[in-house]
Amino acid sequence: MKPLSPTDQLFLWLEKRQQPMHVGGLQIFSFPEDAPDDYVAKLADQLRQYRRASPPFNQNLSYWLGQPGWVEDQHLDLEHHFRFEALATPGRIRELLSFVSAEHSHLMDRERPLWEVHLIEGLQGRQFALYTKIHHSLVDGVSAMRMATRILSKDSQETGMPPIWALPEREQSGASNGDLSLWSSVAHLLGSSGRQLGTLPTVAKELLKTINQARKDPAYSSIFHAPGSVLNQKITGSRRFAAQSWCLKRIKAVCQAYGTTVNDVITAMCASALRTYLINQDALPNKPLIAMIPVSLRHNDSSTGNKVGVILANLHTDLADASERLKHIHSGMQEAKQRYHQMSAEEIVNYTALTLAPAAFHLLTGMAPKWQTFNVVISNVPGPDTPRYWNGAKLEGMYPASITMDRLALNMTVTSYNNQVEFGLIGCRRTLPSLQRMLDYLEGGLAELEAAAGL
Amino acid sequence: MKPLSPTDQLFLWLEKRQQPMHVGGLQIFSFPEDAPDDYVAKLADQLRQYRRASPPFNQNLSYWLGQPGWVEDQHLDLEHHFRFEALATPGRIRELLSFVSAEHSHLMDRERPLWEVHLIEGLQGRQFALYTKIHHSLVDGVSAMRMATRILSKDSQETGMPPIWALPEREQSGASNGDLSLWSSVAHLLGSSGRQLGTLPTVAKELLKTINQARKDPAYSSIFHAPGSVLNQKITGSRRFAAQSWCLKRIKAVCQAYGTTVNDVITAMCASALRTYLINQDALPNKPLIAMIPVSLRHNDSSTGNKVGVILANLHTDLADASERLKHIHSGMQEAKQRYHQMSAEEIVNYTALTLAPAAFHLLTGMAPKWQTFNVVISNVPGPDTPRYWNGAKLEGMYPASITMDRLALNMTVTSYNNQVEFGLIGCRRTLPSLQRMLDYLEGGLAELEAAAGL
Repeated sequence: MKPLSPTDQLFLWLEKRQQPMHVGGLQIFSFPEDAPDDYVAKLADQLRQYRRASPPFNQNLSYWLGQPGWVEDQHLDLEHHFRFEALATPGRIRELLSFVSAEHSHLMDRERPLWEVHLIEGLQGRQFALYTKIHHSLVDGVSAMRMATRILSKDSQETGMPPIWALPEREQSGASNGDLSLWSSVAHLLGSSGRQLGTLPTVAKELLKTINQARKDPAYSSIFHAPGSVLNQKITGSRRFAAQSWCLKRIKAVCQAYGTTVNDVITAMCASALRTYLINQDALPNKPLIAMIPVSLRHNDSSTGNKVGVILANLHTDLADASERLKHIHSGMQEAKQRYHQMSAEEIVNYTALTLAPAAFHLLTGMAPKWQTFNVVISNVPGPDTPRYWNGAKLEGMYPASITMDRLALNMTVTSYNNQVEFGLIGCRRTLPSLQRMLDYLEGGLAELEAAAGL
Repeated sequence: MKPLSPTDQLFLWLEKRQQPMHVGGLQIFSFPEDAPDDYVAKLADQLRQYRRASPPFNQNLSYWLGQPGWVEDQHLDLEHHFRFEALATPGRIRELLSFVSAEHSHLMDRERPLWEVHLIEGLQGRQFALYTKIHHSLVDGVSAMRMATRILSKDSQETGMPPIWALPEREQSGASNGDLSLWSSVAHLLGSSGRQLGTLPTVAKELLKTINQARKDPAYSSIFHAPGSVLNQKITGSRRFAAQSWCLKRIKAVCQAYGTTVNDVITAMCASALRTYLINQDALPNKPLIAMIPVSLRHNDSSTGNKVGVILANLHTDLADASERLKHIHSGMQEAKQRYHQMSAEEIVNYTALTLAPAAFHLLTGMAPKWQTFNVVISNVPGPDTPRYWNGAKLEGMYPASITMDRLALNMTVTSYNNQVEFGLIGCRRTLPSLQRMLDYLEGGLAELEAAAGL
């Protein structure tokens, strides 16, 4: 039995009925040229031949002396993990998103390896989709995205390509991996990195002590100032997934006009969408919303390669003018990056952990602290920048579906693919009604910046 | 707020990740003559117009001072409850059963009224299906079946018929209702019928005391003698649903040949299927399996109308000869019914409750008692005996999907419709692999009886 890392244990603890801890990804493909009408059904038959799962897809949760660990699953029931499904008429993107919303709401069966792959036919315009769902304790969001990309090829002629669960296992690279480090740093904060985390109450007590110390420390006090908002309520178990692609060229044109980065414009689009959404709900806080944005930080003096930090970005949702908002977001991001460059590796880990600590504390205890460090998570995971194919079918778009948690009812994850910027929003369906309108508001945010710049 | 009855509370307590407590029903319809190809999509549009839910479909779970109760849901999100879905190619019954298996495995969102209706297109031969899922705390299996029948009409020309969630509310009949009484009698055993059940540990303690007394009482000791079997293990969260219709004429011919009731033949078919299944798994216990069969008992001296009792039927799975097995099952059932006729209403309630008590004790505490009163549940809920229509579409078959629980990994529920006997089997997919083969074994059981009788 391979013991679970403290971070992976955290994901099991955090999971509850209304808070499943799996990440998902939706990929849309178009049929290869000259493909027959039953192309997807034939593909399903081919995939059903891959009856052996590679790590981590063959790992099953097991307990030994109360400690969770992974054991190899001896009776893989492929029909449980791989599902061939169809969209109802008329098979638009709307039906696809509603399908993914429902599937992303369901807890997975802990008695089996914690993953599902849904091959979906019935999408209009000779397209089909693949929705992949993996538990966060098995693989983190960034790795999941990488795996989903690894099944693809640059070669439109390549065939016989295996599904994700049958990919040959790859050596783990030494570099610590983005997403995981965020929660690892909470584990680090607890001084138990590498060891078992112990019991929940102990963890919560230690966390609270650390948070209270940090709040008195002027160096850290500024991170406890996010306003309350409807985004930061208890959530229910049902989800709404909304996803859309934007043309990278449009975003780059805005960057040039304002002298900002692509990330700044993406953040400004999110800020604008959140502002409009909250105004329509009559729920915009007076104080600006704060977004937690994971960033990759390369330190030349660090031997461990990539480091990940978080930026607490002021979204300036109190400002009505879109260009003003973008400019402020840009300078805020610049300052935060500057600050990081002056920090030691140790300081970065501490800062990151403290940013997450109140959320972790609430999640572990169910107690809602009065202080909030951020209102929403906006992450950006780069994807491939040229076309990709899977057994001859061209990938048209890929959209991340991440995790929402109590007091973090919305997650906005962005990726990039072949001159597109791909937004995947996942939210609690009850706490955040009509979440799909956020897509229009994102477009509105971009259009407003274009108009102001005379584009 | 309307408080939950003790029995309904029990269903909330019993529910856990790997043991959802909802009942389901699958109905298969054929398209009306001359219906267009997009008939089901149009039907879906019509059903979406019914935006108001009647009781109990508008009832939401709420807690007040720690006690659960029902409140009227103020924001019905119909898209969450009513889902228009499609089967993957080739759209056979096999794909339909696999769809229902997956859906029946998912816990429902407790923050909303606990029901879902799935309208399913893409079934071969111009047919479509309706899968309805309702939590057992909202409505019991028998009532659910009645409701599902109430949406139908004898008139093939009738249109404008509402879906189940919009049926006008009907006065509750005074007669206590089959399924519910079984668990009510456990509540009665605890002496708390009508009152709140208190805490779980108290309930479990009381239950254990009662069971231990009964085991010493010679009048009851015979009910604790079911053998252990693979059917009586801990279950996982995923389900397999298998369903099929049999022609009532065939079953009646066997009844006549052997001088038994229809129910006896159905029980013998189940016995035969279980025997074959367990032999193939190399897991047939030496001692015969015991089935718990709820029966309706009308006492003339009883003012409360119908009473429900349970028969612990010896399935004689140790006997190799099918006709011998049927004969023994028949005489066992006769004796049990005779015994019931000599019992008072009070004795019936006690006997029923004690039969369920070990299962209830295990379910509430997770502790597996050494004594087992039965191995499997076989219930038979009569349905309409003439053709039914829904907005002009003829009902071709209806199949119940009930509940499996820890130590009760298989549930066999049977109903009848228009000269058909409809079997719906639901089982834990991991504990009972290849459950769908049970359908062949049921057919084998019937064919064997026919052959032996020279039919």
